[in-house]
Amino acid sequence: MTPYYPPVRDTLFVIEDVLEFEKYRGIEAFSLVDAETLEAVVSEAGKFCAEVIAPLNQNADAQGCTRHEDGSVTTPDGFKEAYTSLVEAGWGTLAQPEEFGGQGMPHVLNSVFEEYMNGACAGFTMFSGIMQGAVATVNSAGSDELKAAYLPKMVAGEWLATMALTEAHAGTDLGLMRTRAERQADGSYAITGEKVFISGGEHDLTDNIVHLVLARVPDAPAGTRGISLFLVPKVLDDGSRNAVSCGSIEHKMGLHGSATCVMNFDGAKGWLLGEENMGLAAMFIMMNAARLGVGTQGLGHAENSYQKAAAYALDRKQGRGLGERDKAAAADPLIVHPDVRRMLMDARAFAEGFRALVLWTALHLDLSHHAETAEERQQADAVVSFMTPVLKGFGTDRGFEVAVNMQQVYGGHGYVTEWGMEQIVRDARIAMIYEGANGVQALDLAGRKTAKDGGAVAMAFLAQIAADCDAAGDKLAFIADPLGKAVHHGEAAAKMLVEQGATNPQDMAGASYAWMQLVGVLAVGWMWLKQAKVAQGKLDAGEGDEGFLKAKLATAEFYAEQQLPLCTALRHRVKAGAGAMLAMEPEQFLRS
Amino acid sequence: MTPYYPPVRDTLFVIEDVLEFEKYRGIEAFSLVDAETLEAVVSEAGKFCAEVIAPLNQNADAQGCTRHEDGSVTTPDGFKEAYTSLVEAGWGTLAQPEEFGGQGMPHVLNSVFEEYMNGACAGFTMFSGIMQGAVATVNSAGSDELKAAYLPKMVAGEWLATMALTEAHAGTDLGLMRTRAERQADGSYAITGEKVFISGGEHDLTDNIVHLVLARVPDAPAGTRGISLFLVPKVLDDGSRNAVSCGSIEHKMGLHGSATCVMNFDGAKGWLLGEENMGLAAMFIMMNAARLGVGTQGLGHAENSYQKAAAYALDRKQGRGLGERDKAAAADPLIVHPDVRRMLMDARAFAEGFRALVLWTALHLDLSHHAETAEERQQADAVVSFMTPVLKGFGTDRGFEVAVNMQQVYGGHGYVTEWGMEQIVRDARIAMIYEGANGVQALDLAGRKTAKDGGAVAMAFLAQIAADCDAAGDKLAFIADPLGKAVHHGEAAAKMLVEQGATNPQDMAGASYAWMQLVGVLAVGWMWLKQAKVAQGKLDAGEGDEGFLKAKLATAEFYAEQQLPLCTALRHRVKAGAGAMLAMEPEQFLRS
Repeated sequence: MTPYYPPVRDTLFVIEDVLEFEKYRGIEAFSLVDAETLEAVVSEAGKFCAEVIAPLNQNADAQGCTRHEDGSVTTPDGFKEAYTSLVEAGWGTLAQPEEFGGQGMPHVLNSVFEEYMNGACAGFTMFSGIMQGAVATVNSAGSDELKAAYLPKMVAGEWLATMALTEAHAGTDLGLMRTRAERQADGSYAITGEKVFISGGEHDLTDNIVHLVLARVPDAPAGTRGISLFLVPKVLDDGSRNAVSCGSIEHKMGLHGSATCVMNFDGAKGWLLGEENMGLAAMFIMMNAARLGVGTQGLGHAENSYQKAAAYALDRKQGRGLGERDKAAAADPLIVHPDVRRMLMDARAFAEGFRALVLWTALHLDLSHHAETAEERQQADAVVSFMTPVLKGFGTDRGFEVAVNMQQVYGGHGYVTEWGMEQIVRDARIAMIYEGANGVQALDLAGRKTAKDGGAVAMAFLAQIAADCDAAGDKLAFIADPLGKAVHHGEAAAKMLVEQGATNPQDMAGASYAWMQLVGVLAVGWMWLKQAKVAQGKLDAGEGDEGFLKAKLATAEFYAEQQLPLCTALRHRVKAGAGAMLAMEPEQFLRS
Repeated sequence: MTPYYPPVRDTLFVIEDVLEFEKYRGIEAFSLVDAETLEAVVSEAGKFCAEVIAPLNQNADAQGCTRHEDGSVTTPDGFKEAYTSLVEAGWGTLAQPEEFGGQGMPHVLNSVFEEYMNGACAGFTMFSGIMQGAVATVNSAGSDELKAAYLPKMVAGEWLATMALTEAHAGTDLGLMRTRAERQADGSYAITGEKVFISGGEHDLTDNIVHLVLARVPDAPAGTRGISLFLVPKVLDDGSRNAVSCGSIEHKMGLHGSATCVMNFDGAKGWLLGEENMGLAAMFIMMNAARLGVGTQGLGHAENSYQKAAAYALDRKQGRGLGERDKAAAADPLIVHPDVRRMLMDARAFAEGFRALVLWTALHLDLSHHAETAEERQQADAVVSFMTPVLKGFGTDRGFEVAVNMQQVYGGHGYVTEWGMEQIVRDARIAMIYEGANGVQALDLAGRKTAKDGGAVAMAFLAQIAADCDAAGDKLAFIADPLGKAVHHGEAAAKMLVEQGATNPQDMAGASYAWMQLVGVLAVGWMWLKQAKVAQGKLDAGEGDEGFLKAKLATAEFYAEQQLPLCTALRHRVKAGAGAMLAMEPEQFLRS
């Protein structure tokens, strides 16, 4: 199987040339990262993921995690050693707070690391990928005592954490949850209930696991206003085992390297994070971080599957091309066929465009914390809030689609286990479901993030794209013109959505998925305009690697031709609302 | 898990009301099937598939097929008994020639049976689904002696068959194959070589297996013009074992019920079918039948996954709807949410629309054999030829997409093995690859089936749709108007494709996938116009089940709103051709 190559060069092109990292050097977190450090961190992160993590991936799927009779869980061979290396190298601490031992670097760098980790082995990444959000949650909502006791170990990665939200009857709808938390004399709580789908609920990577658990205190109001958040360690301060255990692990379609646990809390000792009944807000700190992380999973799967398919398409000889060909050989490599190119170009166009979007959003996450003025911070925060469901929903949809297409490049071998492509498809599928199913992301984008403020953030976002299109000039017209037209569809759709939100929210809900796709297509298109602008500028100036820069222009053109025309159709779908969706009686959907 | 319900009512609506089966009663094959017989055959076919085949499906995946050390292969528990029932009931003989013991019924009925079988258990269906094409091939190309010796057993299903085409280095490109056939003194040939991906190459369902094998005679020209077709039985006339054996079975993403074999031919005795070096033409009889069959697989997966998701969406309570709701309950069923409806309606719109297209095509297959005049037969044959890559390529793409969406309705449970949804996705994936990968189908449609005759068949097909739109009247304007506009995009695209074919075939190849999707969206849209017309007519006349008919109108409207707008984008893609796809050097696709 083709190894995983961290796309270091493309990452640096985005950060240095497209995002112009240099401009932000005045901000403290960024001041730590001069050009040399940036290049060193990115290339070392890539090296670590390629050399230490990627080799785990195929066996992680074949072997999976094992739960033993005593409730302990063993991870696949090599996970423990790799995790120890990760902790020793300090990779988990990149963007963690310095106060608790972190390196305090920009989130942009952590996003790079997350992408590479997910491209290398998504199952492994599930154990540690959550730590950024877990630390932020405890840091934001925990008492000083809890922070002192837990954060140094969590930041260092010596202890891992979980998000324990879901119950069997309460998935998306957290308001239905039943897990109870009873106040104890010592100020702690006794937590009782069963949680399901808990990633990394039990494992052998660390001595302790810090569960962040949603539960209800006895007198809590019904629904989501009666949910509190607790910190429940697997091992207590005195070294004794807490009353929390893994009842079973799920048999899943993929992501076998990740232990998806049923966790039983039997009066387990826990401590309140924040205030009673305010748990959902605290948990959302974690969920938002996790959603951005899941977006990088879509990117990782797209990039990894693309690399393997591209290598295969150059290697595998089948059929004759219509153009130039190798007359001495009996057949040409697959890559001569335009339809194979179509799939590879689509994968490239998504991976490289979406990478830029992920890093652009991460930059705004940094700016939301560190920009100079409150207004800049607030604007950056609004951008992150608007883009979070897009990165999660659109990014994982397209990441899966790319993985399916890259499997297609392999023909029948794509379906056979040993080639590894079908694993990527199976692994990528879950990203569309967990951390809020993509339909929920679409609703979040349409309702809370678009209609609620009358479309202000959405329109400001679209206006930025429109302004860049207007200013692009003749050489970039090949993308700026169609993107400019597509933005008009976006603006029209945004207005309709706001109107629907005010007059008929069912229509808004029915339009939400198309809206998320429309924003995704436009946002990635914008990133292509930005990349094309840099590439054209460098070519005009006679700077840089001509081949690399021309490939950027070709890919931007491909994106403009293939993806931007979808915006018309998506606008139609937004306009259609929910009418025909709701015309039938529920029972009519049943065949019998 | 929700059981599989054969959609008998919808099938009969299509055959009786939309295709107006009655009109064809003058044709011999159809004269066997009066209204009562039709209803009996369809409902008994459904009953058989639901009761005998569907219960095999989940274990087929879990247990899979086993190859033993002696090369024998055991199918999953219950397969042998179910297959014996199938043979005893004569289901395989429906549309087989009466001359060899078949029932001589229309292909339309066999298509119904194929859909139900694939909906019930695709892995099981792989063993017998090939027999229609295998019998047709031997019947067309075999000597009288071979036909007499093999066809009665094959028609009855006492012996099963394989298509042995692919070799490890020769998948799509059959011209590369190396298997040798040496003439023997007794008129037979000794076949030597290794074939891979042979579905049902070895199993325990029948005493004998008839392999239809492509191989080269010693003096054969290079490439596809030097390929001959042979009949190679597992067991010879004298009861001895032929020199053909299963070397291994593949570990695959899904379809575990089907034994995908590496087959070794070690001087195996075989007989020529047709003439030397003319094997590809003979094999295409089989491949075309198989491609239509694989199209019904896409339909079966879509219908089966739809049924399960619909039942789950009515049962599972999560969150609150925005409209009417059950105030006494803590939550509403999933189906109140417009975005869940969107996914279910999309699945319905594909399954019911594509079912009509499959049966409409099967009707033309019957007409191509049995219509009164040579002109009618030729026209029907052109329709089948044009639609075959669309049913295979578009049908399996959309069948997979529907299965993925229906898995999404289940949220996290969709990813867990026990609920069965992830199996449908894994099983459905291969249909996009085998019998000619969907990109190959697109090339076939664009090149041989569209550009080659200057777009004559394509334009005639589009003209029929346009005429129906023009004649539809006000009540059907909700679909006829957008479909009429979409057809114009289709016509424009067809012209561009013909032009590309003449001037720059690379552009035609680059446009081919979009063209296949465009024809698919239009063809299914046409089927929705036809269904809406019948439904509206019956409602106007006060006939039939109002709920059923109104559901047809609602689904047609949904299709018009959601799918037809894609035609603009697909036309743009056709226009774009291959330029940007081919701009990069092959090596630039590699990350390292």
